[in-house]
Amino acid sequence: MIVVKSIGEMRKRADDWRGRGKTIAFVPTMGFLHEGHLSLMREGRSRCDVLVTSIFVNPTQFGPNEDLDKYPRDFEGDEAKCRTEGVDAIYYPSVDEMYPEGYQTYVTVERISLGLCGGDRPVHFRGVATVCTKLFNAVKPHVTVFGQKDYQQWQLIRRMAADMDMGIEVVGMPTVRESDGLAMSSRNKYLSPDERKRA
Amino acid sequence: MIVVKSIGEMRKRADDWRGRGKTIAFVPTMGFLHEGHLSLMREGRSRCDVLVTSIFVNPTQFGPNEDLDKYPRDFEGDEAKCRTEGVDAIYYPSVDEMYPEGYQTYVTVERISLGLCGGDRPVHFRGVATVCTKLFNAVKPHVTVFGQKDYQQWQLIRRMAADMDMGIEVVGMPTVRESDGLAMSSRNKYLSPDERKRA
Repeated sequence: MIVVKSIGEMRKRADDWRGRGKTIAFVPTMGFLHEGHLSLMREGRSRCDVLVTSIFVNPTQFGPNEDLDKYPRDFEGDEAKCRTEGVDAIYYPSVDEMYPEGYQTYVTVERISLGLCGGDRPVHFRGVATVCTKLFNAVKPHVTVFGQKDYQQWQLIRRMAADMDMGIEVVGMPTVRESDGLAMSSRNKYLSPDERKRA
Repeated sequence: MIVVKSIGEMRKRADDWRGRGKTIAFVPTMGFLHEGHLSLMREGRSRCDVLVTSIFVNPTQFGPNEDLDKYPRDFEGDEAKCRTEGVDAIYYPSVDEMYPEGYQTYVTVERISLGLCGGDRPVHFRGVATVCTKLFNAVKPHVTVFGQKDYQQWQLIRRMAADMDMGIEVVGMPTVRESDGLAMSSRNKYLSPDERKRA
């Protein structure tokens, strides 16, 4: 398993795999991996020759008062889990690599971004569409796998991939739940035992 | 020389060329080709193994009161010129193929789109960035060639390609002028002899 931090190197690896006739599956994440993410990786693993996952806590999808700074991180733990799932490459760019000085290009999916999570979080879906476009352009996947836990996000990526002629199959996987029924989420870490019980 | 009308076929051809190690140069146009376009094609021809041009009068970059309906067209004449310049494929999708029912994804390059041509024509550069992203995703070029006549457009595409991690070299070529000094443009057809002289 390799860890790739530069956009140029990621693209070169992807071109090389494609040049040798390999198919690429891609699971984008913000890290702090749980069983939900791992189920997406297994699906990707079963569909393609090469499995890439990305770990990038994307600032452009957080609003000004959201939890960007305290979003949980554990790169070493994530690396071990990826290795167990047979990931070939972790794409792990820095914020400066992704959004250098002068950055100014954004992707919007208009109607799907309204309502539900989009109503309260106006920049959220623009950030998701933008970062996924950038990740897709570097990783060049044939298939990408998303969780249906974030249903609106999955629909948005499907729409975007079709509208933008990306030629990427966007697979949605069922929500994975804890034994007590709570949907798995990296943000469950924020819950106190009492909050957790109510959730 | 082939003419490709479907997005899926274009992408398949591009994958096939890339799979055989060929480099692809791409010149997007709205047709009604003149010597300016042909100079871009010659540059593309000299740089890559395969030369693709597109002919698509893109509705999303015209404002409501602009000249979309009367924009000049001459596909047969364009085809003959492309053949002479050694074009391998003309990508010639329909408006319905590019913007089907339910289409809703747009690319914006924020600061470069303001001022100059962007001030008067608010949707213009969003349309240009969007259609170029779609064309690039289907043609998968290594190099794309634009005219510096449309200077702001060239800068916008360079910025977009960098911001979106497209891995495409965006080459700009000097403006080609008529013998009387007027910059060549398909829209010069609109000028009366007197207007032409003043221009």
